[in-house]
Amino acid sequence: MFLYSEKIYTPQGFVKGYIKIVDGKIHGIYEDTEGKFIDYKDKVIVPGFIDIHIHGWATGSFWYEGTEKSLENMSKELVKIGVTSYLATTGTDALDYIKSHLVSGKAAIDNWKPEKGSQVLGFHLEGPFINKEFKGMQKEEHCINPSIEILEDFFQSGGKENVKLITIAPELEGSLEFIKYVNKEGIQVSVGHSAAEFEDIRDLKDYGLGGFTHTFSGMRGFHHRRLGVAGAAMYFDDMYAEFAKQTGKTVSHEAFKIMFKLKGPEGILLSSDSTGLAHVKEPFHHYIRKCTFRPDGEYVNLVYDEGISERINKYDYEKVKNLELSYLDSVKNIINNVNASIGDIAKIASENPAKYIGVYDKKGSIEVGKDADLLVIDSDWNLQDVFLQGIKQELD
Amino acid sequence: MFLYSEKIYTPQGFVKGYIKIVDGKIHGIYEDTEGKFIDYKDKVIVPGFIDIHIHGWATGSFWYEGTEKSLENMSKELVKIGVTSYLATTGTDALDYIKSHLVSGKAAIDNWKPEKGSQVLGFHLEGPFINKEFKGMQKEEHCINPSIEILEDFFQSGGKENVKLITIAPELEGSLEFIKYVNKEGIQVSVGHSAAEFEDIRDLKDYGLGGFTHTFSGMRGFHHRRLGVAGAAMYFDDMYAEFAKQTGKTVSHEAFKIMFKLKGPEGILLSSDSTGLAHVKEPFHHYIRKCTFRPDGEYVNLVYDEGISERINKYDYEKVKNLELSYLDSVKNIINNVNASIGDIAKIASENPAKYIGVYDKKGSIEVGKDADLLVIDSDWNLQDVFLQGIKQELD
Repeated sequence: MFLYSEKIYTPQGFVKGYIKIVDGKIHGIYEDTEGKFIDYKDKVIVPGFIDIHIHGWATGSFWYEGTEKSLENMSKELVKIGVTSYLATTGTDALDYIKSHLVSGKAAIDNWKPEKGSQVLGFHLEGPFINKEFKGMQKEEHCINPSIEILEDFFQSGGKENVKLITIAPELEGSLEFIKYVNKEGIQVSVGHSAAEFEDIRDLKDYGLGGFTHTFSGMRGFHHRRLGVAGAAMYFDDMYAEFAKQTGKTVSHEAFKIMFKLKGPEGILLSSDSTGLAHVKEPFHHYIRKCTFRPDGEYVNLVYDEGISERINKYDYEKVKNLELSYLDSVKNIINNVNASIGDIAKIASENPAKYIGVYDKKGSIEVGKDADLLVIDSDWNLQDVFLQGIKQELD
Repeated sequence: MFLYSEKIYTPQGFVKGYIKIVDGKIHGIYEDTEGKFIDYKDKVIVPGFIDIHIHGWATGSFWYEGTEKSLENMSKELVKIGVTSYLATTGTDALDYIKSHLVSGKAAIDNWKPEKGSQVLGFHLEGPFINKEFKGMQKEEHCINPSIEILEDFFQSGGKENVKLITIAPELEGSLEFIKYVNKEGIQVSVGHSAAEFEDIRDLKDYGLGGFTHTFSGMRGFHHRRLGVAGAAMYFDDMYAEFAKQTGKTVSHEAFKIMFKLKGPEGILLSSDSTGLAHVKEPFHHYIRKCTFRPDGEYVNLVYDEGISERINKYDYEKVKNLELSYLDSVKNIINNVNASIGDIAKIASENPAKYIGVYDKKGSIEVGKDADLLVIDSDWNLQDVFLQGIKQELD
């Protein structure tokens, strides 16, 4: 198959040509072709987004449901917002809860095929090795110190090869040994939900701390004599700062812009940290949205603090997709806020995440030999078409 | 008179040549010359430092003594640490106290000549229009709202033309009117000792807020949803961030480095905020130094919190010069911390301060027509010679 565009974004810049796709991979970008091709004319082709921090989205929630079906639902919907691969992300819960989710997650990974939508690349374990003091929306009673033994149990459940990223609070006892072990296994470590001091990060980073989870949120903040985790994220050029969906509410657009200026597009990772809010299993109050989500069978009831209520079928994509800002809308917000170029977005949404979790040999850019995970967009970043390993996806 | 150097730093970069000085001004930089010249060979010639925020230094304190003599003492010593001009800086005190100081200051300005040492360029009024909540070492009972009437009294005492810079807390009532008035008079305004929100700065800056006084200290700190004054200093490229002497104690070197990276050398102003600690009039506890300064006639007694005491003659330069980090040592710290180039230092210590207070037509760079305020340094920034309007200064 051939796709033609005047503007194909590659790590070397824009090229014009025909992308040849063979067996789901990019075979080459050619100046000329024979036979059939899809003519995207002046539409832009960019690599698909990789969401390394996502618990749920729209009609599925791996965090709340933890079933193979929940990931299948997520995969089906995620392509509609440009996410062509992701890490199924666990939370800080009871160990058995996490393990059973990892078992289901492994099945979803093993049974995935491009026709199912966005690819589950593996797991991001957000805790349970995090600090109660900065638990955010995680559960205090399940915050525990890093443990290699527990991690090995997780490996048993989900497959060692599937664990790509772990968020920990590196000030907790046992962290150094844990970080060394995890680093040796080729697994990335992010600092998050952490009360660490700047000096803790400085002393531990070279053992294998690669970046920061939802930067600024759930971490010790910046002070000019006590820089904290936020200051470390600002200071260390060789560590990535992950930002969850840029609504401007959790992290102000100005704070994001300061970090973007400090680190440049090379140092920012965009994620969503979406949870699939429609699928909560017990009433959940969202302090940013000022709304309580109440489960009710096939429905979720939203009870806003201000008094209004709303009832939504949790499998109705058109309804639930508006419960959390989409990855694509987050991209659009960033473009407006920092005047990001297409290349900047390709870095923060595709290249950097792929490099961070060690899949850049297969994903994250439009290059020969890589998976043909492609977005066709117009000049306003509206999705025209999405390809997953060369398979055109259903967007409606 | 001619000075020769292989490395003369100008805004266009380094040049090799003979600086011709006529009537205290730079007449030109020539490739060749006839007759006598001072041969500085491979020594570097840079513009003299301009300290826009200094209350006192070594054997004199304008803040504590407020006499013409105090400024003469300061001028005599400041050339020894590379400062060739400065703003005599008042504090937040009783109005009559400030006014009598301004009267003495005006006399010092009027009677100054190059043989006396560092030139008093005018005044920096640090308050009294500041916020009690962030008073720092200023006096709470004298913090008042901005008042044009009071400012006009200050003009009467010190000469309107001598007031170059005012530090205010722009969230205080009356600020907008005050800023507009001051801006019309061509006087610069810095934000300091301020509880302002980011949004206050955003809304007022274009009326005439040029920068931030001792950035990070005495201001509402940074939070990612409430950026405060510190966040405004990080965010607004068109506002200068002043940093008082970089000891690493008041503002950590890492926090300075973050700001240096954000704003670049174009956006940083170096000052000292030295007070002439030997000259306190009543016991004063320094919370950073953990020491109480007690006046005792010609002497000052230092009583350290840890129990040790020290007695120093307050007019013995060799003793008192060590009470506060010198401007030159601050420069050396910055070079070590951010790997600043000679050009970076020329910007933050000479060019930017001169531009900020509106004297760049006469000071702040080595250019034809400007005052010959020059430092001759070796490659480690040790002062070899200092010229003030072409007059070689006594450094020992």
